[in-house]
Amino acid sequence: MRSEGDPHTSPGLGGPAVQSLTLLVLSGDMEKGAAACTLALAALASGYRVELFFSFWGLNLLKQPGAGGGGSLQRLMGVLNRDHAGRQRLGRLNLLGVGRWAMVRLMKSRGLPSFREALTTAHRLGARVVACSNTLELLGLTRDALVPEVDEVAGAAAFLESARGGQVITLS
Amino acid sequence: MRSEGDPHTSPGLGGPAVQSLTLLVLSGDMEKGAAACTLALAALASGYRVELFFSFWGLNLLKQPGAGGGGSLQRLMGVLNRDHAGRQRLGRLNLLGVGRWAMVRLMKSRGLPSFREALTTAHRLGARVVACSNTLELLGLTRDALVPEVDEVAGAAAFLESARGGQVITLS
Amino acid sequence: MRSEGDPHTSPGLGGPAVQSLTLLVLSGDMEKGAAACTLALAALASGYRVELFFSFWGLNLLKQPGAGGGGSLQRLMGVLNRDHAGRQRLGRLNLLGVGRWAMVRLMKSRGLPSFREALTTAHRLGARVVACSNTLELLGLTRDALVPEVDEVAGAAAFLESARGGQVITLS
Repeated sequence: MRSEGDPHTSPGLGGPAVQSLTLLVLSGDMEKGAAACTLALAALASGYRVELFFSFWGLNLLKQPGAGGGGSLQRLMGVLNRDHAGRQRLGRLNLLGVGRWAMVRLMKSRGLPSFREALTTAHRLGARVVACSNTLELLGLTRDALVPEVDEVAGAAAFLESARGGQVITLS
Repeated sequence: MRSEGDPHTSPGLGGPAVQSLTLLVLSGDMEKGAAACTLALAALASGYRVELFFSFWGLNLLKQPGAGGGGSLQRLMGVLNRDHAGRQRLGRLNLLGVGRWAMVRLMKSRGLPSFREALTTAHRLGARVVACSNTLELLGLTRDALVPEVDEVAGAAAFLESARGGQVITLS
Repeated sequence: MRSEGDPHTSPGLGGPAVQSLTLLVLSGDMEKGAAACTLALAALASGYRVELFFSFWGLNLLKQPGAGGGGSLQRLMGVLNRDHAGRQRLGRLNLLGVGRWAMVRLMKSRGLPSFREALTTAHRLGARVVACSNTLELLGLTRDALVPEVDEVAGAAAFLESARGGQVITLS
């Protein structure tokens, strides 16, 4: 979908100079965060331009512990929705925490990083981390409630612009 | 993936004249419907050609209230699977309806449209709304069971044809 | 995103000679497996090159019955995580197996294939079936634990390479 005039493509026969991968993370489950970071790190290693866009429950993955909104409904959602960048439940086989406990132990025993560690690495290697402005507003949160890796707070139009001409993978 | 001979591209250097976005909605959860409509509206505003293709549980988002199929197994699925265009449960934190109630109130208090309102707007602005023929047949439903915004009932081959050369975002 | 030098594109005006579709299956739910196979079969019928990449819970769809890992945590995960290529729960309305039972009966009564049957057909028609090496290692499984349709065990970098220039649909 790149045209010849696109600044991200080279004019030669070798195809686009920079491939881009945009990961749209709509789920806050531990396995979805892990999948996003695994794909981000592989893409960075292959020279892709990478953006991680977190929206809806995916925003939990960027929340500082204890972050909560202002209104009473938002405080209620904050209490119900306690996961954050340092702790997520499994989307499947969570089993009141037993499956989660086993998965965390298993990942550690195999030397796999936690979501937060992988996010920090991906960010340091150049992945752009974006939080959805609509979700932030809905939950009554501000930029301060998010981890420092967040490069930008932006909406759906900015997401589409960034995704334009590249590959999009949704984790929902 | 557009070639110069593609009717959707302009011959100039400015790249494709029309970008297309196809949203494949496989989940009937309230948040997935909201995400689909948010992306559809943003893409329409940016001049994209937009198609919303609803399949599997996503078809719930197009069902009229009370729609049910013919056979006894289909009636059983209809009873179990009561969500429709005007009412969806949350995929996460539904909490027997408490989370859903809080989310609906929260969205209203922030002036956000319901799924049905957003679908109507997207459709009026030019989004094509397609229901999966296989799912309809599986559930024993006909076109009459669906909201009037549905432009077409079609299968996987038609989905691939429409998605060809454009961007696909799956909400599952 | 194909360049003129790409072996999969024709030099003519008709655009890419071979479109590719990569299905990233991150969920082991019955309906996600069915969606993946439906899309794979439609794409094969339209002449696409198709790859099915199974990762995380999606690997359940490739497991032989009774497959289990080596360490004690891996054995625990194996006991909790009993689904396999021949039997999956529904991601929604499973209802301790009632919804699953109704769905399986409904699919049979409409002449629809099971996931396993559809996978075998897709594979015979040319779809490439790949299992995620990281997930295998995490669960302590080897190639022997998987169904014979698996063509390759590979990681995220191989997935990105295969998806390059084509369409990616995530089922998560």
